[in-house]
Amino acid sequence: MKPLGPVPAGYAALDGELAIAGRTASALVAEGGGTPLFVYSADLIRDRVALLRAHLPAAVRLHYAVKANPFPPLLALMRTLVDGFDLASAGELDLALAAGQAPAAMSFAGPGKRDAELERAIRCGVTLNLESAGEARRALAIAERTGIRPRLAIRVNPAFELRGSGMKMGGGAKPFGVDEALVPALAREVIGAGAEWRGLHVFAGSQALDAGAIAETQGAVLALAARLTQEIGHPLPHLNMGGGFGIPYFHGDRPLDLAAVGAALAERVANLPAELAGTELAVELGRYLVGEAGVYLTRIVDRKQSAGHTFLITDGGLHHVLAASGNFGTVVRRNYPVAIATRFGADAEEEVSVVGCLCTPIDRIADQAPLPHAQVGDLVAVFSTGAYGASASPAAFLAHGRAGEMLV
Amino acid sequence: MKPLGPVPAGYAALDGELAIAGRTASALVAEGGGTPLFVYSADLIRDRVALLRAHLPAAVRLHYAVKANPFPPLLALMRTLVDGFDLASAGELDLALAAGQAPAAMSFAGPGKRDAELERAIRCGVTLNLESAGEARRALAIAERTGIRPRLAIRVNPAFELRGSGMKMGGGAKPFGVDEALVPALAREVIGAGAEWRGLHVFAGSQALDAGAIAETQGAVLALAARLTQEIGHPLPHLNMGGGFGIPYFHGDRPLDLAAVGAALAERVANLPAELAGTELAVELGRYLVGEAGVYLTRIVDRKQSAGHTFLITDGGLHHVLAASGNFGTVVRRNYPVAIATRFGADAEEEVSVVGCLCTPIDRIADQAPLPHAQVGDLVAVFSTGAYGASASPAAFLAHGRAGEMLV
Repeated sequence: MKPLGPVPAGYAALDGELAIAGRTASALVAEGGGTPLFVYSADLIRDRVALLRAHLPAAVRLHYAVKANPFPPLLALMRTLVDGFDLASAGELDLALAAGQAPAAMSFAGPGKRDAELERAIRCGVTLNLESAGEARRALAIAERTGIRPRLAIRVNPAFELRGSGMKMGGGAKPFGVDEALVPALAREVIGAGAEWRGLHVFAGSQALDAGAIAETQGAVLALAARLTQEIGHPLPHLNMGGGFGIPYFHGDRPLDLAAVGAALAERVANLPAELAGTELAVELGRYLVGEAGVYLTRIVDRKQSAGHTFLITDGGLHHVLAASGNFGTVVRRNYPVAIATRFGADAEEEVSVVGCLCTPIDRIADQAPLPHAQVGDLVAVFSTGAYGASASPAAFLAHGRAGEMLV
Repeated sequence: MKPLGPVPAGYAALDGELAIAGRTASALVAEGGGTPLFVYSADLIRDRVALLRAHLPAAVRLHYAVKANPFPPLLALMRTLVDGFDLASAGELDLALAAGQAPAAMSFAGPGKRDAELERAIRCGVTLNLESAGEARRALAIAERTGIRPRLAIRVNPAFELRGSGMKMGGGAKPFGVDEALVPALAREVIGAGAEWRGLHVFAGSQALDAGAIAETQGAVLALAARLTQEIGHPLPHLNMGGGFGIPYFHGDRPLDLAAVGAALAERVANLPAELAGTELAVELGRYLVGEAGVYLTRIVDRKQSAGHTFLITDGGLHHVLAASGNFGTVVRRNYPVAIATRFGADAEEEVSVVGCLCTPIDRIADQAPLPHAQVGDLVAVFSTGAYGASASPAAFLAHGRAGEMLV
């Protein structure tokens, strides 16, 4: 028996079923046009933003990393809740504009921006987080050609990393950003060329659950930004401090102590280095804002035995929830939080493996997990799939089609 | 320095560039509308089919597993080259019909077939490879309701596995197929219900490079089919022996000795058990037919140093070649065959890492690899991406868009 990950707070049973926004899983599936279906809870997203606002210093702006979930209705909601969007492609810029976000509230990072993407961002007035000297020169050349003053920031590759992060984005050789030591000269070059200086972006890692590690990294980011600002010799208008706030996925994971993160950051904000006195601070969050607000619902198509083992076979799979199957940047597969949505809250009665409909042994949703006895027709819920789910999975694989998505 | 995988046979330089079908990489990109672009060589596919026909016994039919690459022009070509298509979804059935394939030459396997998929296959006259008793009963109920005689085969979960296979599909508890011991009773039930008995499907593993292991497994499959046929008590019209023929991806991988596989199979076919005297035999291949015929071309957007390490940053990435990035069912990441397409055949001059354009450290195309010195604008080729590439990658991730695809 292998344990399941923890079901996030905020999900309750109604008539014996998982309920989201006061509707049962069955009702949601009927409304959403069938399974598989991602359901995103607007209330849980609002609650999460409110929690962040309550704990983080008021001076710290909240940005949403669109890459976590670019579902258009969700972006339209996020626009009303956060202070800015961070983008990773011109495609995301189009989505953000369609959601009504103002270009002045957007920044665009990404190590492989094409010239056409740089030009589109400059024409829109979106801040570019420059990832290299070469990119800076391409952006300045486009600015000169178009006669538009570009809004430029520099993404820094910090010499430190976020301890315990799922994805390390700093420390040592990285394709992201400009190495610390090279930043001052590049910043002066950009400012000297007449660009609007928009500041620095430091992203040291993601998916950390240790408040101490996040607080320590935020301290290091502020100190680095102060030092770089002094070396650059121009006021720093904006500092994207990165994110890194993790969510629990696996058995034994504990939620991030947001109060501790907030208290440490408040202490630092109250005692900012002089160089950052006029600097607008922002944190960039994706997964932390929407991950736990999303549930993937899939229907059991078959129940079978093989060599004494019970399999529940669903109409979903890794083509929609690649990370939950353990195949996206994962070394050791562990079970996500999974439940029988139509028997929500019932006691575990048997050990079963829940698999997807794909013809591959890696399409596993829950492995040897304790679950209530489920039958063909029951719905399975995979929690914590609101971020890096639908858009981060190979939807075309085996031509089963995309999952539905709905914001409720 | 980490070695690159072996470039498949059949690729040559022309004017210092990689050439496919007599056109340079640059010319192909211009023709295909830019990068990133998958180029599939019809000649290399034809050569591979001819090689199989030359080595495998004439009595053994060649089936194409559509899941390997469902690009419509490629399917239309495959239809003219092979004897049948194996499908994994109703979506693939639609693609196969659009490519002109006859339903009588198709079979449909997959552990999570929905009722609508079963009905569509039955109405089309496609053979269903039944994966469980439950599915058999659902299919028979649909047949009764529609008044159509279904063409039914049973997929067997064999007690053995294909030694050394990349994906084990047999041996022990599996979500695929019906355990050996349960097959005879289920086959008799299906035949007794009036279905057209189409035989057995045994798929013990995939991506094996050891001819001895494949030959051994084919022997085991034939013996199993003979034994089951005797127990079922009806002639076996068709036996899908599975595939498992692997291709080299990584340094040190040696191509499969197809002559050895063919010789062993010829020996077995010449001495078939009496139960299989009238049985049509087929092998089901996907990756082996098209994998090495596909090349992914992506353009270098930036060249940068970080902490003494050189990165080439491309406009492609894991959203198109997830497996090549090491993030699809892989435990230890190793380099695929990668080359600078616009300096093809040039000596390696430096150690570089080639990465994609995504904002994630897992988006790596070649890690610390020996390559000729390349500049912004050069094209990178990722070989052996003709199977499980475009359709098996999260194309929507970060909204950079799909790659182009062309058959030349």
